[in-house]
Amino acid sequence: MTTTQTETQVQQWTNLAQQLRVDSIRCTTAAGSGHPTSSMSAADLMAVLLTSYLHYDFDNPKNPNNDHLIFSKGHASPLLYSLYKAAGAISDEELMTLRKFGSRLEGHPAPVLPWVDVATGSLGQGFPIGVGIALAGKYLDKLPYHIWVLLGDSEMAEGSIWEAFDHASYYKLDNLVGILDCNRLGQRGETMHGWDTALYAARAEAFGWRAIVIDGHNYDEINQAYAQAIQANGSPTLIVAKTIKGKGVSFLENKNGWHGKALNEEQEEQALKEIPHVRSMIFPVQKPENRQPAPEPAKQELQLPGYDGKEAVATRKAYGDALQALGTANPDVVGLDGEVSNSTYAEEFAKAYPDRYFEQYIAEQQMVAAAVGMSVRQKIPFASTFAAFFTRAYDFIRMAAVSRANIRLCGSHAGVSIGEDGPSQMALEDLAMMRAVFGSTVLYPCDANQTAKLVAEMANHDGIVYMRTTREKTPVIYGPDEEFTVGGSKVVRQSNGDQVTVVAAGITLHEALEAYDELQSEGITIRVIDAYSVKPMDEETILAAAQEVGNKFVVVEDHWPEGGLGDALLDVFTHQDGPLPQVVKLAVQSMPGSGTPADLMEEAGISAHHIVEAVKVLAR
Amino acid sequence: MTTTQTETQVQQWTNLAQQLRVDSIRCTTAAGSGHPTSSMSAADLMAVLLTSYLHYDFDNPKNPNNDHLIFSKGHASPLLYSLYKAAGAISDEELMTLRKFGSRLEGHPAPVLPWVDVATGSLGQGFPIGVGIALAGKYLDKLPYHIWVLLGDSEMAEGSIWEAFDHASYYKLDNLVGILDCNRLGQRGETMHGWDTALYAARAEAFGWRAIVIDGHNYDEINQAYAQAIQANGSPTLIVAKTIKGKGVSFLENKNGWHGKALNEEQEEQALKEIPHVRSMIFPVQKPENRQPAPEPAKQELQLPGYDGKEAVATRKAYGDALQALGTANPDVVGLDGEVSNSTYAEEFAKAYPDRYFEQYIAEQQMVAAAVGMSVRQKIPFASTFAAFFTRAYDFIRMAAVSRANIRLCGSHAGVSIGEDGPSQMALEDLAMMRAVFGSTVLYPCDANQTAKLVAEMANHDGIVYMRTTREKTPVIYGPDEEFTVGGSKVVRQSNGDQVTVVAAGITLHEALEAYDELQSEGITIRVIDAYSVKPMDEETILAAAQEVGNKFVVVEDHWPEGGLGDALLDVFTHQDGPLPQVVKLAVQSMPGSGTPADLMEEAGISAHHIVEAVKVLAR
Repeated sequence: MTTTQTETQVQQWTNLAQQLRVDSIRCTTAAGSGHPTSSMSAADLMAVLLTSYLHYDFDNPKNPNNDHLIFSKGHASPLLYSLYKAAGAISDEELMTLRKFGSRLEGHPAPVLPWVDVATGSLGQGFPIGVGIALAGKYLDKLPYHIWVLLGDSEMAEGSIWEAFDHASYYKLDNLVGILDCNRLGQRGETMHGWDTALYAARAEAFGWRAIVIDGHNYDEINQAYAQAIQANGSPTLIVAKTIKGKGVSFLENKNGWHGKALNEEQEEQALKEIPHVRSMIFPVQKPENRQPAPEPAKQELQLPGYDGKEAVATRKAYGDALQALGTANPDVVGLDGEVSNSTYAEEFAKAYPDRYFEQYIAEQQMVAAAVGMSVRQKIPFASTFAAFFTRAYDFIRMAAVSRANIRLCGSHAGVSIGEDGPSQMALEDLAMMRAVFGSTVLYPCDANQTAKLVAEMANHDGIVYMRTTREKTPVIYGPDEEFTVGGSKVVRQSNGDQVTVVAAGITLHEALEAYDELQSEGITIRVIDAYSVKPMDEETILAAAQEVGNKFVVVEDHWPEGGLGDALLDVFTHQDGPLPQVVKLAVQSMPGSGTPADLMEEAGISAHHIVEAVKVLAR
Repeated sequence: MTTTQTETQVQQWTNLAQQLRVDSIRCTTAAGSGHPTSSMSAADLMAVLLTSYLHYDFDNPKNPNNDHLIFSKGHASPLLYSLYKAAGAISDEELMTLRKFGSRLEGHPAPVLPWVDVATGSLGQGFPIGVGIALAGKYLDKLPYHIWVLLGDSEMAEGSIWEAFDHASYYKLDNLVGILDCNRLGQRGETMHGWDTALYAARAEAFGWRAIVIDGHNYDEINQAYAQAIQANGSPTLIVAKTIKGKGVSFLENKNGWHGKALNEEQEEQALKEIPHVRSMIFPVQKPENRQPAPEPAKQELQLPGYDGKEAVATRKAYGDALQALGTANPDVVGLDGEVSNSTYAEEFAKAYPDRYFEQYIAEQQMVAAAVGMSVRQKIPFASTFAAFFTRAYDFIRMAAVSRANIRLCGSHAGVSIGEDGPSQMALEDLAMMRAVFGSTVLYPCDANQTAKLVAEMANHDGIVYMRTTREKTPVIYGPDEEFTVGGSKVVRQSNGDQVTVVAAGITLHEALEAYDELQSEGITIRVIDAYSVKPMDEETILAAAQEVGNKFVVVEDHWPEGGLGDALLDVFTHQDGPLPQVVKLAVQSMPGSGTPADLMEEAGISAHHIVEAVKVLAR
């Protein structure tokens, strides 16, 4: 650039940054709440990015060539929305609807806006999700788009941030640029490390990143940092920008007590006087080159594995078999696992499709974040670990629902029936956790053929879809041609004289069948329902049983009594008029230790023997 | 030491290490499962520690002067139990009960053994809990004990590990020593960074630690590393030990495919031939000096705040007020918060008792781990953040129950009633999550006086105790002398002609009272129950309502429909004979955005207006 060009450029950056500051103040004052000062610190960083580095087609947010801009510090949403206005994507009028009921401009960014990839606002999530998108960009789409993530310094305390650092360098994601807006002040005072930008840079470097420390209000330094960051060298780049919270307004700059506070109208007037600005200019954003994502193999007809029932098969094994088959049929299917793929059987997919499998090591938060990132790029991610360890990523799963992400999770080794490994490895709360996710689907198959069919269903199902699998081998009770659907169930035993209905799923379905045989030998018949779709539950079949068998139910699950299959069954009856039936819940009532699966199920009170006892009491 | 002494010492270490290897193999072969190879890699490290550095009174595990030894890599439990045997704490006979039903020697360590501080087995937890104990040791007990944590290299991928690194150096915990058993092999192959010990050391140093890289099978290097680690220099120490998985047996050493596999009897025989050993020697462990923990101020009578009802008070504010009062009364009360203490009002405690308050920044996993560590040292920790962000620490909360820890958690900003900040900040699954924790207590107060009384109850209550507080100010409906207990409830409206019972808690109780007034004006009376103890629920009062009012219930909650107050209510009726009543659940049915609390509660279907409608349908 010539000197004049440079001057013009700097003037443009300045104009934009001032407009962003002004708009961040205006929209939060109009809202009466929000985060103007956390927006102002990053205004210069974002001004240079928007006008000189971001490649984005605002008219076509689904353009696969678009860069991705994620505000991991989601509370700086006023700045993000002001950027959208500067780019001409939203009007000033809409900007002023911030935080109002019905507005797309929520307190924290959410994909109700077409340019927002994922919801942020729970700190430490946007960055690891950016890693997921970068994985998709580099290894699947093979397109040169960049992922720009704005980070706050407070969120550097979240462990998930360091999982992201670790994975990004391991996978050589030089399409990823983190921009750390180090403004020193958190919600309630100074952050752990204040303005120690050297410390952040040293940590990033130790984690294999290129780190560039700059003054976040010096356009020349900002510009040079971005220019360097897009020079691919095999490493992701962190720009550590020392900034001033509230920058641009004397009475806000670097002042404690202004976090998350809007200015009142008088303060707004005073503030705007200090910021020279032209209101509401449009700043053109460069569109990306028009390239095509890497060609994929053609889709094939799905050929699911079938099991002849001659031997018992663990549902976790069937998951692996089916995932591999799904991978063959659909090149959009992506596999992720938390270093237990030989236990979850995700290894079958990993071996067959190493290019579409991303080992996530023991970093469950990063694993779910990577799945969300894959969903942003329209892949079909399946992520697996022990069901117990999805508790590690619950905040990410919760937020994935706010992100309207489409991800499939498979948790193996559910319940006390895992046996000797003991309670740390037993998922006993996963059904409760996953049911309480907005719009989620929760599946819990009992045999291999059912598992395979349901894995195929998962691929076609939107939202957060969870499957719970079992460690132990279980008998194959369904034929390979039997059909299973989300929201379905199977009545596996019934007769005219049924006295009680037993509802089970997964491992306990086999206990229920054993109980059936024992009760039948004593002249008592029961209806047995396989409620493999825990959410949504097959209300019709349950209500029919209440009608036909009568008001006596036993529900049995390898889970704590709270929030699982039993509560799901009870919930069915709240959707109808009239009283609920009598329901006896059999669930794990005491803290298990180690032992054989049979010992532990007996102790937990969920074995065939306990079902028999419960039925007999009810049938009296 | 003289040369002879050194030789004797080395011989002792060698003897012990070989015994540990032999015992780790023997007990897992007897069990038929478990982790011999992950035990063998750390045998030399632990042999030197046990005989020469650990100070521990095995006859008195509650001795406050004891060092703490935590196996963060809990799957190396055979090694830990073999250490207990070597120390004379357990017999060889008991060692051979490993993983058997009823044995104290579970697959992963749990505090059913008196020398185990906390349950491990979910990787990445023992280390941050060690940070919590180290905080207690340095700042509260002020005793010179050390916390020794054995880490696996696979778990270095967990973000929680880096939260621990960050906090330990920030708090200058030079009483903490991490011993990284870097054996290169994870469950399914090489770990992310293999034997790159320099990388781990560089990262630890970047996080402010002293790092010492050694050969983990060289006694001289091990000895020198420990000697250096206990020289306090204001920093915690990480010993990065390059080790060989399966060390000591040729066909196991550094071989993939041997993770978590026991040897069969033939393999065992072959292995033991390779390890020269004397079976079952006792190796004396040094007892700690007999010091007294730092003297505490005397306990005082608790003077809880009282609210006169003239103005509305947020329950989160009452939490802060009561916690401060509790701090005055009881010097064992410790405060922790995730950088939101001005929102949760933990800041009141922090300001009054800065010596007993530990800022945890935005690191919720570390916060819960620190609380568990405080519980190990018999403190009474209260940890707070936004209720939504406890989802970040769910695995830690789940494991805290396995650890039989006594911790109190307070989650503020529950539900859609927070208003403008939007769904990322709204806890809508916390009741489900916390109910599904073994032995947990879940409290949800609706007014300031109730909150204060329940905070006092929390301090006296064991296990995982959770309180949910509200952002908005709510009317004070109870007098300051009203009593509230865990497991209680209050009937706040009743008359002879009640047609329907409405069960509510927290913010929705006020909606229920508004509905009561509206319905009364139309000639319909309802019973209103304040179910502030969500778990355990006051079954007696609920069942009395079913008896007296009849079988019609409306339950209303600011939470997803799954797993919360509604499911808790339904569960009451599974504990009695006979059919259940008709229950209508009002809960949040759609993804909220931003808006006023009133707008969002109306949209969610949980406002007074919706209660009125539901009651009218039932009362027909």
